[in-house]
Amino acid sequence: MGSTPPADNLVTENPDHVHIMPPDDARVICPTDYFSGPGKKVLLLLNQEIKLPVAAVQQVWDASQLRICADGGANQLYEYSLKYGLDWLPDFVIGDLDSLRPEVSIFYKSKGVKIKQQSSQYYSDLDKAITLSNLVLLNPAINLDDYDDYDGVSKHEESIADSIQEKVSVFMMGSIGGRFDHTVSTISKLIKLHRTKPNFQFIVRNSEYNEYILFIPKGRNFVTLLQEKEYHQGEKLVKGKLPLVGLLPLARPVRLSTSGLKWDVTNWESSIEGKVSANNLLVGDNGFLVDTTGPIFVNIEI
Amino acid sequence: MGSTPPADNLVTENPDHVHIMPPDDARVICPTDYFSGPGKKVLLLLNQEIKLPVAAVQQVWDASQLRICADGGANQLYEYSLKYGLDWLPDFVIGDLDSLRPEVSIFYKSKGVKIKQQSSQYYSDLDKAITLSNLVLLNPAINLDDYDDYDGVSKHEESIADSIQEKVSVFMMGSIGGRFDHTVSTISKLIKLHRTKPNFQFIVRNSEYNEYILFIPKGRNFVTLLQEKEYHQGEKLVKGKLPLVGLLPLARPVRLSTSGLKWDVTNWESSIEGKVSANNLLVGDNGFLVDTTGPIFVNIEI
Repeated sequence: MGSTPPADNLVTENPDHVHIMPPDDARVICPTDYFSGPGKKVLLLLNQEIKLPVAAVQQVWDASQLRICADGGANQLYEYSLKYGLDWLPDFVIGDLDSLRPEVSIFYKSKGVKIKQQSSQYYSDLDKAITLSNLVLLNPAINLDDYDDYDGVSKHEESIADSIQEKVSVFMMGSIGGRFDHTVSTISKLIKLHRTKPNFQFIVRNSEYNEYILFIPKGRNFVTLLQEKEYHQGEKLVKGKLPLVGLLPLARPVRLSTSGLKWDVTNWESSIEGKVSANNLLVGDNGFLVDTTGPIFVNIEI
Repeated sequence: MGSTPPADNLVTENPDHVHIMPPDDARVICPTDYFSGPGKKVLLLLNQEIKLPVAAVQQVWDASQLRICADGGANQLYEYSLKYGLDWLPDFVIGDLDSLRPEVSIFYKSKGVKIKQQSSQYYSDLDKAITLSNLVLLNPAINLDDYDDYDGVSKHEESIADSIQEKVSVFMMGSIGGRFDHTVSTISKLIKLHRTKPNFQFIVRNSEYNEYILFIPKGRNFVTLLQEKEYHQGEKLVKGKLPLVGLLPLARPVRLSTSGLKWDVTNWESSIEGKVSANNLLVGDNGFLVDTTGPIFVNIEI
């Protein structure tokens, strides 16, 4: 696992196959719930080339109820649609629009896509897209012309001090990888959103590599790619090769306990300045349990 | 700058052009020193597709005295060389070698490249490559056959408890972007190496986007792309578009003061869980000064 002494008695090496029964009080984090689980589904596209095969993107597109491009995310969707002959139209494009290409703007406008400039630099394009998600889910008939082009949308959200109460899953593409400050901004934003919008669950798809990056809150979490009925039947996640898993303490130092990984840890201190289990493997055929004293990120290979 | 209230009195908005005289006690961090500055130069290639133009890679290749591929980094060099008809050979390939493709191994072996397996999972491939850099710089005649294939190289380094004292610049390609746990591992490793190998300076090149990612230690740092004689003459860094700069507090919360950025900050608290100046701009024609109470990372557009 890269950073753990083999002799560390807080680390246990497991066989390549185990089955975990998640305790009833564990929070289940299942990114593939996006495709058929309950709750509202929002797709956010950011400004990074979409490199996934059409079938993968189609699955996400079809599952989404609301599709928002943050600024240059619209260019990426446009290019991708052109390349594969798709007639996909986002519901909204929002941002300071300094990256949105004129021909993309003209094309989407002509097709009835709502394009809303919010030029304030206080909020990032990602902030603006998430604010818009919340407002549209609260009121699908919202008229964006009611709000100024500087920061009217964010100010409106602040004025109502209301947030949709239902579970919302947000699938983000194009936010990890690419420019490094974008990656760091996304990570930082996800930590903060957990406090301000606790019912929003974020699923970040690496745009190039086959992995999800998931925010894991403090407490006991069961991370799985299977839905509940499937993992109770013990359907096998584990294929020929064991999927890679990283436990990434990006917010602050934590203590971790896991079961279902090749190298399980017990009450193990982890921090970016210290030990990081960045190269672990999934051996739980239904997922793995992670108990953490603070928020971490997990990457899980798919 | 994405996360700073415009009304924050710790933030000053600057004109698009300023000139900074770095104080004598500032540490100068200049990634382009790699091409003509003093000290030893080591190129580390990791397992991520090399997407830069040949001229850019050639410049790094030519400046390097020692070129090491970490495991699958050799596949990437091989592919890149094939694609562009280059006859570049690394000095070493090291790692657990679970990613090294057989035909690449055979080819490089036939050309006399030294390939050393170190199968221990206690050390990452990046660890192994940096350890090897240190040992080869200490003793260019080192015979790797003297050390076992499990962790002999690292054990040897620990046994001599010695590190090269000269300044060493390490140019890393293929370590940021790609798999997210690799990115996080690189960041974590750079924080720790600053303690254990303080004379090693790391320059990380994003393999796709035109940026450097730099480790900035605690204290007063002047970050520039110009060499000393150039910035004293006030040669202009700033071209048509202002280069993007992000100040990324990935290790722990810090207080920052800057000069030379579009939005300069004074004694400004920054943390991944709080405010991050991830989308600033360079307005200093020779670079910018950053005073930090703890290590941060900086991305700088080139």
